[in-house]
Amino acid sequence: MRCIGIDWGSSSRRAYALDEHGRLLAQRADHAGVLNKAATASPRDFGAELADFIGDWLQQGPRHIWLSGMVGSRTGWHEAPYLTLPCALGTLGAQALTLAWPAGLQWTATPPTVRLLPGLCQRPPQGTADVMRGEETQLLGAWHLHQAQHASEGGGVFLMPGTHSKWVRLCPVMGRVLSFRTFMTGELYELLSRQGALGGVIQGASIDIDDEIALRAFDEGLRWAGEDSGLAALFRVRAQGLLSAAPAAQARVEAAARLSGLLIGGEMACVASDEGQGLLRAIGEPGLCVWYARAASHFGLQLQIVNPVDCYLAALQALENLAP
Amino acid sequence: MRCIGIDWGSSSRRAYALDEHGRLLAQRADHAGVLNKAATASPRDFGAELADFIGDWLQQGPRHIWLSGMVGSRTGWHEAPYLTLPCALGTLGAQALTLAWPAGLQWTATPPTVRLLPGLCQRPPQGTADVMRGEETQLLGAWHLHQAQHASEGGGVFLMPGTHSKWVRLCPVMGRVLSFRTFMTGELYELLSRQGALGGVIQGASIDIDDEIALRAFDEGLRWAGEDSGLAALFRVRAQGLLSAAPAAQARVEAAARLSGLLIGGEMACVASDEGQGLLRAIGEPGLCVWYARAASHFGLQLQIVNPVDCYLAALQALENLAP
Repeated sequence: MRCIGIDWGSSSRRAYALDEHGRLLAQRADHAGVLNKAATASPRDFGAELADFIGDWLQQGPRHIWLSGMVGSRTGWHEAPYLTLPCALGTLGAQALTLAWPAGLQWTATPPTVRLLPGLCQRPPQGTADVMRGEETQLLGAWHLHQAQHASEGGGVFLMPGTHSKWVRLCPVMGRVLSFRTFMTGELYELLSRQGALGGVIQGASIDIDDEIALRAFDEGLRWAGEDSGLAALFRVRAQGLLSAAPAAQARVEAAARLSGLLIGGEMACVASDEGQGLLRAIGEPGLCVWYARAASHFGLQLQIVNPVDCYLAALQALENLAP
Repeated sequence: MRCIGIDWGSSSRRAYALDEHGRLLAQRADHAGVLNKAATASPRDFGAELADFIGDWLQQGPRHIWLSGMVGSRTGWHEAPYLTLPCALGTLGAQALTLAWPAGLQWTATPPTVRLLPGLCQRPPQGTADVMRGEETQLLGAWHLHQAQHASEGGGVFLMPGTHSKWVRLCPVMGRVLSFRTFMTGELYELLSRQGALGGVIQGASIDIDDEIALRAFDEGLRWAGEDSGLAALFRVRAQGLLSAAPAAQARVEAAARLSGLLIGGEMACVASDEGQGLLRAIGEPGLCVWYARAASHFGLQLQIVNPVDCYLAALQALENLAP
């Protein structure tokens, strides 16, 4: 085994093991995220949590364990710095922190080096204040992957939808991150659809990309996002629901889809003018990316969906100096 | 006693008793709002709740009890209709529903008439879908009051800040409500400052209009609202907090004030272009209105603060055909 990579975020963690050629040997995931306190004892013992998670893999003698994501935040295992933009992704590995091998863990004669990857930040006056942790590693992989496949096409705009959706502008030369912006789309959807005035009309309804009713309502939300600032339009989701003559179950689905369209459309409306006609690449969960693709098309943008696991594996290959 | 008016909202209720000349005899308030389920038994007995609240006043023989607000919603005592815009406020009283006198309550030989006031709604294609319950009664009072004081000046734009902030355009002739829009400003502030990514940096900090640090950060939030759609700027509150070198307690206050400035500024940015140089009147809690006044001034608008109790009492006078 060459290395192990763990994408250790707020709500979950995903581990991948690569062989000497950079090929995937094994993968696993669980919900022991950094903010998922219920899953663990207090105070946290991240070394023990690591052993619980991938202890069996350690017996195969990996050289490195790469950690990225919220595990490097103030509330994580150890605080890793934020590298300030503009920042070449090729330097991420060299700027990782080496963590002390957890006391009491001895699985091999030579324990692997535990390397904690830094995050990125954008500071005024170069840009608006913004931070990321974890996405930079996916981006390193996306750049590595696309550069290898298409020579000069490793740059452009990358969208990483999720709890905190990131839009990142990347220069193909050296994989320099030029700027990025974060939208709290996923978090807002979760907060607003479960409580308060909109929670009252949505009542936990979920939406399905194959449901014509949801699609029509999603498109309506996209139109609202184009007409109005998102904050101004949120209450329309409730008002339209209260004034609707639709059966209750349908009204709930419509409200959920309008909220989703409004929030995702809000991202698109903000970036559509900046990003022009260029190709966007979305790195994310396919079930979420299809909604973004629909929204992109509504705003005249073209969106290509990239598999996030492929990106993460390519990042590990890049960190290990292996060709993709 | 001429009448009793109860502004019975989601989280609280406020009662006022007027004499034959429209003068205030007594007032009281509690937290038994329509959505405050903890306060009451299930299923709700609104008649009994009314008796608990103002039973002693009934012995003074009021002719009418006027109810407004969420008590007239689907989850309230009885569902009152929404009157569709444009709607003359002078017709509100005539369109109130008369509720049956609650069984088992006999406080006077002639029980008062219980009158449930309608809400207002705006329906596409005349405008974006929107609804209000309770604010229409305050507006009736504001119109009545200003018309009496300044003849033709009863119209213009009224702002009613709160959980769901309303901006209402009123024609002075007949007090016709021409259009309105709702911003979920207060609700968003509550949701976002107590949980999730922004709750993590705000940690329950409160802000004070006399605190220079809070004012500077509030103004920064206003600038963000002017630069960016509100949804795009929310995460800046977190990022700026994480990147700040300020002491922890100060960073929390700054984050709270930036979020407040961003949300209130978001309202102002949306309406500033529509409302031009006209005078705005804000009907609301003075401690909240001062922040709106600061935001209005930032966006080149002039805001006059109107006392909400004066408006409500003027509404009762109007409903009883008494001169203010």
